[in-house]
Amino acid sequence: MSLAEINKNEVDIVIGALNADLTQFLTSWGPFFSGFHLIVVKDPELKEELNIPEGFDVDVYSKTDMEKVVGASNSTMFSGYSCRYFGYLVSKKKYIVSIDDDCVPAKDPKGFLVDAVTQHVINLENPATPLFFNTLYDPYCEGADFVRGYPFSLRSGVPCAASCGLWLNLADLDAPTQALKTEKRNTAYVDAVMTVPAKAMLPISGINIAFNRELVGPALVPALRLAGEGKVRWETLEDVWCGMCLKHISDHLGYGVKTGLPYVWRNERGDAVESLRKKWEGMKLMEKSVPFFDSLKLPETALKVEDCVIELAKAVKEQLGSDDPAFTQAADAMVKWVQLWNSVNSSA
Amino acid sequence: MSLAEINKNEVDIVIGALNADLTQFLTSWGPFFSGFHLIVVKDPELKEELNIPEGFDVDVYSKTDMEKVVGASNSTMFSGYSCRYFGYLVSKKKYIVSIDDDCVPAKDPKGFLVDAVTQHVINLENPATPLFFNTLYDPYCEGADFVRGYPFSLRSGVPCAASCGLWLNLADLDAPTQALKTEKRNTAYVDAVMTVPAKAMLPISGINIAFNRELVGPALVPALRLAGEGKVRWETLEDVWCGMCLKHISDHLGYGVKTGLPYVWRNERGDAVESLRKKWEGMKLMEKSVPFFDSLKLPETALKVEDCVIELAKAVKEQLGSDDPAFTQAADAMVKWVQLWNSVNSSA
Repeated sequence: MSLAEINKNEVDIVIGALNADLTQFLTSWGPFFSGFHLIVVKDPELKEELNIPEGFDVDVYSKTDMEKVVGASNSTMFSGYSCRYFGYLVSKKKYIVSIDDDCVPAKDPKGFLVDAVTQHVINLENPATPLFFNTLYDPYCEGADFVRGYPFSLRSGVPCAASCGLWLNLADLDAPTQALKTEKRNTAYVDAVMTVPAKAMLPISGINIAFNRELVGPALVPALRLAGEGKVRWETLEDVWCGMCLKHISDHLGYGVKTGLPYVWRNERGDAVESLRKKWEGMKLMEKSVPFFDSLKLPETALKVEDCVIELAKAVKEQLGSDDPAFTQAADAMVKWVQLWNSVNSSA
Repeated sequence: MSLAEINKNEVDIVIGALNADLTQFLTSWGPFFSGFHLIVVKDPELKEELNIPEGFDVDVYSKTDMEKVVGASNSTMFSGYSCRYFGYLVSKKKYIVSIDDDCVPAKDPKGFLVDAVTQHVINLENPATPLFFNTLYDPYCEGADFVRGYPFSLRSGVPCAASCGLWLNLADLDAPTQALKTEKRNTAYVDAVMTVPAKAMLPISGINIAFNRELVGPALVPALRLAGEGKVRWETLEDVWCGMCLKHISDHLGYGVKTGLPYVWRNERGDAVESLRKKWEGMKLMEKSVPFFDSLKLPETALKVEDCVIELAKAVKEQLGSDDPAFTQAADAMVKWVQLWNSVNSSA
């Protein structure tokens, strides 16, 4: 599939604006965002006016818009990196591509700029293969195929729910790792896409992600916020937790999640050593989350994504609620999210 | 870990000789096999004398040696590609590296020849991470790390049981695919190693593989043979089936299986179109095998690899035996293999 075959009307590019000046960001992405509709969501805590260069088809949403939808007291659910979820909520498109505003296009090993949008859409449009691992990576990629022994009955694959891209330069590390290895940079461009097998857990990052909104939209939920969460990714866990929910629900409903290409180039933002002074609460919450998701089994009656989120919230409250108030808040946020999703999307 | 740090005394390189003239094969591998002990096992159906160039530390095993160990009537269990299993049986080393005799060293994207032996040993010596997927690939590789959200309690990993390498030029396709796409060649060098998640099934190929013999030796069992099996890989299923057993047993015992690097360059052998005239029985057997392995649960009392193989054989016979006589034969071969393994390895 080439650029020409992608239906740009089916895609919303959602950008959470944590920085007011989007000039460098949007200019660098210009060639690849051109012709697509952009949803820019301004962090409700950001005071300055956004600076958006001309030439983009863009709708901007601010705190006022959030308050209209969720009420004045609730706009904090979209603060910081969580602002992009407001874009997911109000989009009407089939596919969402979302990239953090400190990322620019990466270069592939041949020196060409990577068109992350097209690669994400290709990943989503082609089937996924979560039920059996193909050692030759994504069998639908050009030049690839199914390896000997791959069951023929599984070669048509399943719908792809999400495409998780990767990062060159500053990889997506947690606060302690980033602070301890300040000089560490990722230079490994691994030229592959693959489906993460069913039942396997992974920490999905929100930095560079795309998903099929029609299939799994409500599963991308802003739920888990750390008390000491700042405006740098390595201090957050909201996207990782959301990703664990998304992967589990995708497995339950028979969809696949892909990881690998496209890469983006991540620039530095924030002071990693400063983050080291904070205790990274995410560490403790992940230790509780892993056995929870590992043993979680959603009821077979949960056939819609919304049902799955509600059932998941119920299990979170029951099994994790007493461990940490962050989990109870997450469960409540999930229920509220489904109500919001239904009201926004049914009134449309 | 560099070449210098590898203890060559811990490794046996096992080569199944399906061709009498190993000159080109061994010469091409000379720089990387140098200093290692080689076990060459001659296909018992091969009549000609082996041609082995000077300069290698090699022990050759032939039909006569097999008959001494398994009796004259049983040497057929080591015919064709299965001959390499005899090498696994008689080795006394910790690690086995095994490469088909139609493969030569591949070149990496920079044009350097790939030292497949060293890469396999590095994969085996470093831990595996089957319990949680790391989107940044093998976190123990130089320059790599654990991604944000990766549980700290799982970062020490588990022992690596096996390392599955890949193929450039002629990829490891099945007979129908190879015959239908005769011109197809694999040119994608994906520069990554990863652990295949626990519970995920994959078709492990025997073309380019290494394993920790001390951990899982008896799990590599020559069991499933196709009636129409020839002397070309695309007509076999023995290694794929053995790999499914190996992966399941590794999962059960808490070990990991890696896939990815190293690549080897696979040359053509045999006539793919000729293979198309045969019905590829493997297709039917895989369709039966997948639900079997997917639902298989070895008893918790199976703590040793040998116990696991026996329990697996029992389940194969009970659940698959009535579907195809090949499965009953496979189950019997597995039981016999464990007996053989115990007698050869306890008498040593």
